[in-house]
Amino acid sequence: MSKILRVNMTDLTTKFESVPEKYRLTAGRGLTSAITCDEVPPTCHPLGPNNKIVYASGITTGTAAPTSGRISIGGKSPLTGTIKETNSGGMAGQKLARLGIKAIILEGQPKGNGQQWVLKVDKDGAELLPTADEWLGKGLYETYPLLFDRFGERVAIIGIGVAGERLMRNAGICVNDPENRPARYAGRGGMGAVMGSKGLKAIILDDKDGPGVPIANKKVFDTGRKKLLEALRTHAVTKPGGGLNTYGTAVLVNIINEAGGFPTRNFREGRFEGAARISGETIHETCENRGGVGMTGHGCSPGCVIKCSNVYPKPDGSELVSVQEYESVWAFGAHCGIDDLDITGECIRLCNDYGLDTIEAGVTIGVAMEAGLANFGDGKKAIELMQEIGKGTPLGHVLGNGAAVTARVFGVVRCPTVKGQAIPAYDPRAIKGIGITYAISTMGADHTSGYTIAPEMLGVSGKVDQFIVEKADMARNFQYATAFIDISGHCLFIAFAILDIPSGLEGMVEECNGVLGTNWTLDDIGRIGGEIIRMERLFNEAAGFTTAHDRLPEFMKYEKLPPHNVVFDVPDETLDKVHAT
Amino acid sequence: MSKILRVNMTDLTTKFESVPEKYRLTAGRGLTSAITCDEVPPTCHPLGPNNKIVYASGITTGTAAPTSGRISIGGKSPLTGTIKETNSGGMAGQKLARLGIKAIILEGQPKGNGQQWVLKVDKDGAELLPTADEWLGKGLYETYPLLFDRFGERVAIIGIGVAGERLMRNAGICVNDPENRPARYAGRGGMGAVMGSKGLKAIILDDKDGPGVPIANKKVFDTGRKKLLEALRTHAVTKPGGGLNTYGTAVLVNIINEAGGFPTRNFREGRFEGAARISGETIHETCENRGGVGMTGHGCSPGCVIKCSNVYPKPDGSELVSVQEYESVWAFGAHCGIDDLDITGECIRLCNDYGLDTIEAGVTIGVAMEAGLANFGDGKKAIELMQEIGKGTPLGHVLGNGAAVTARVFGVVRCPTVKGQAIPAYDPRAIKGIGITYAISTMGADHTSGYTIAPEMLGVSGKVDQFIVEKADMARNFQYATAFIDISGHCLFIAFAILDIPSGLEGMVEECNGVLGTNWTLDDIGRIGGEIIRMERLFNEAAGFTTAHDRLPEFMKYEKLPPHNVVFDVPDETLDKVHAT
Repeated sequence: MSKILRVNMTDLTTKFESVPEKYRLTAGRGLTSAITCDEVPPTCHPLGPNNKIVYASGITTGTAAPTSGRISIGGKSPLTGTIKETNSGGMAGQKLARLGIKAIILEGQPKGNGQQWVLKVDKDGAELLPTADEWLGKGLYETYPLLFDRFGERVAIIGIGVAGERLMRNAGICVNDPENRPARYAGRGGMGAVMGSKGLKAIILDDKDGPGVPIANKKVFDTGRKKLLEALRTHAVTKPGGGLNTYGTAVLVNIINEAGGFPTRNFREGRFEGAARISGETIHETCENRGGVGMTGHGCSPGCVIKCSNVYPKPDGSELVSVQEYESVWAFGAHCGIDDLDITGECIRLCNDYGLDTIEAGVTIGVAMEAGLANFGDGKKAIELMQEIGKGTPLGHVLGNGAAVTARVFGVVRCPTVKGQAIPAYDPRAIKGIGITYAISTMGADHTSGYTIAPEMLGVSGKVDQFIVEKADMARNFQYATAFIDISGHCLFIAFAILDIPSGLEGMVEECNGVLGTNWTLDDIGRIGGEIIRMERLFNEAAGFTTAHDRLPEFMKYEKLPPHNVVFDVPDETLDKVHAT
Repeated sequence: MSKILRVNMTDLTTKFESVPEKYRLTAGRGLTSAITCDEVPPTCHPLGPNNKIVYASGITTGTAAPTSGRISIGGKSPLTGTIKETNSGGMAGQKLARLGIKAIILEGQPKGNGQQWVLKVDKDGAELLPTADEWLGKGLYETYPLLFDRFGERVAIIGIGVAGERLMRNAGICVNDPENRPARYAGRGGMGAVMGSKGLKAIILDDKDGPGVPIANKKVFDTGRKKLLEALRTHAVTKPGGGLNTYGTAVLVNIINEAGGFPTRNFREGRFEGAARISGETIHETCENRGGVGMTGHGCSPGCVIKCSNVYPKPDGSELVSVQEYESVWAFGAHCGIDDLDITGECIRLCNDYGLDTIEAGVTIGVAMEAGLANFGDGKKAIELMQEIGKGTPLGHVLGNGAAVTARVFGVVRCPTVKGQAIPAYDPRAIKGIGITYAISTMGADHTSGYTIAPEMLGVSGKVDQFIVEKADMARNFQYATAFIDISGHCLFIAFAILDIPSGLEGMVEECNGVLGTNWTLDDIGRIGGEIIRMERLFNEAAGFTTAHDRLPEFMKYEKLPPHNVVFDVPDETLDKVHAT
């Protein structure tokens, strides 16, 4: 891919640049982090004129590689203050790649008259268009159809909702799914607020007659693609009719709950009495009962062979929301003491509509319950609190800024965040390795930055006892491998297969070699991943982060988590050891 | 003084301990910071069970030393996350000292049933009493009289208002003035929220028949006392009928405004067209016209010879509030575009009533105006916004948590804070030295931690051009000297006299020698002050602060301040040089 598109919102110009040699062999997270490190002052205000956003597809995105439709979006996070990469499925990654654009760099800031813009990109170039009034201030379920009416059904849209327009730090960036729902999110870290701060409502990608993705060595690529495909089609977690395909990611609910690591009522307990009612099994059953066959096993982007998404129906069979995922049903479910998928579904729908990350939003509602704004288990009130965000009331502004701000505003000490980002659906007191990941991730509490749940819970990549604390090496290795997957353009869920099936792992690397013409071996995974992590850590260090920030919330050290009655007892020295080398 | 009183709120016990040798020669800020460093884990949650508060009078407090009634209150700040010392005048410092108590250490946390307590201390010991219902949830103008009814008119009360009860991070700690108004504050840094988090509503100090403050060498003490007294009575700023005594601290309004460093409308401009109407001269004139003689030149604690306080009357001559000070009339005045002392007076009265720091509260209202919650200059709306804090609405919770949280919630980039604490009434773009102080102070933006305004604006301690940027040495020296004054128990305002009059400086040191039996010389001021600053910086470093945090808000580097059209151009290297040695 030959071009970088630079969009300057101060003077409203667009410019295509050639790709510097140093960026040639990277993509996805590797590229968003490299450009952020090279161009963004680490101490800048994340919503000021000196922050930037970078959009970049992965190495194999836009090719026939299976499950490779990811787009990475990075910059300095207004939620955490760290560097941030957040990636999404949906339709945008492949179209951006096929336009021959390696990255879009969004920079500058319009002088504050509130004007917003849309960036239209097609084979002929790029253009900033003023927004129509009816595109602003509304839910994305209303706005996206208007945009598709205007720009055609076959474009991809990368957009923000009212949360981003209002600079709320839990604003995600939305990507349409194959049926053009506003349902896929580069959600975490508030990058939607950065986009909003630059006055950009949406990017429209029309790849019609685009150049496509050049492949340097088609034979190597095809060999790799087949190996990876075979692994994905074989592994019990990823295969058609396997765990993810049948039950979605919420297949984890019962597993994690059984293990006593399913955070319940704002991390007061590790097991939820209502878990079964929000499980993947129940989602599957309800989808079939209400909507018939085909509501589960939904793919979020073309070419995915795992297809873990779903379209959840209302009681009358009409569509409520896509998608009820593990993290989302946990966040609005067990975390809030709610055991009703119609409630979690409505809350997820509101997230999609307003443009919010579901993990952060759900954890925030639980923190608000902790603060006494609602009782745990009160689904009606949970929905009302979510609607405050849509209305933009002062309370809505608080909640729209995430769990840490909500805790701060209401004096809540039991605040489950790391570096200002909400902890996902695995309690680190009961599952130590993921706690190490949360603590030392370059991006705040983020299970996807080093998913040690695979060995700790699922027996993938070997089986490791959940309570063992000396997992520094494991956490580091998972972070490195993840960073590589994040540049490859593949969904992280290929990890289940490639960790267990060596030829699948080789396949991923060979796909990259095929596209880039490189000769990477398996050893390069750790090398390249490590380089990305070290680069990100340097940014954070310059931004003012130290090992004192690589810690879990203090309450997890003195509040015992039932049913195992454990605290987080991984020594600080172990945490500091992860990246000491 | 022979005792430390340790109060444990977890098991509701009080215990007198002897003073460890290492604390024998320190007091005030030196003692609060030392105990904080020794006993508080730097990464603890400031509102959790592991933070502590230390209350300690200065070395000379409780003696006949002039203007020496200060009490220091320290711990880890919930506003900044740094170590914090905030000191106050009023009646408490002297009574604590005369009870023979060198420090009260408040630690632990009751199990959360919302119960609150009062700590009663007298010559016979200390006791935790349950609060009466009518003491809680009300304004301090209502609560303090009830407490005096219960405990007698001659006690001192160190208490918190509803802001502290609600754990708002702009909650200050209130000390009654000589007429028992809830009018003096250890305001900055939110230590009232820490007190609230420990369930302590108030400390009642009854020094009747207390042992008093032992003086090791009365002759040396008296010599020093006389020298200092003479200096204070001679210097134009501090003498009876001098600037502070006649006009109060707001004598600065016209001076700083003229210099173009008077932050106006949330730091958009450096000169306010309405400055004269909120000046010390106007305060003086209005006090005389409405209330008659004696409303200015009010002393905030016994034995003060400067007497810079005032009691500001309503149009009918009845009392509105004590005290209209420079920082407070600026924060609710120019900073909010308001030029009406009746408005600033009412806002200050609400701060006293709710238990808030006026600087942080006023800056917060200006930030709320920036966010569009009111127009600059709208005094009625400013009062209404303040009342939200009293009501405890969601918006009130936001505003009660200070300027940085308010900016975050509403997406305001022009946020005038350092380490989360509001910048006081000197714009650092126009007055560079105070900008260095704000940036490198151990406690967030704090003019009192190194008041370089003395030479930069007032010609005290020489005259230094306001625009010169190379002031690292000056900033360091002011911080060291200030830290010494903060252990001496004197009000910082003695600095005007002792910086210009060498015998006054000697007098301060000799007073300390007299009380402690030491042989300190002038050289020990910098040594002792430097030790305190270095100790505080070590705490902050362990809490996760780096030079990246020793910076002013980014907008001050790119937004030019009228009328001089200057940015903050002190190089980062200069900032880092201050404490590099």
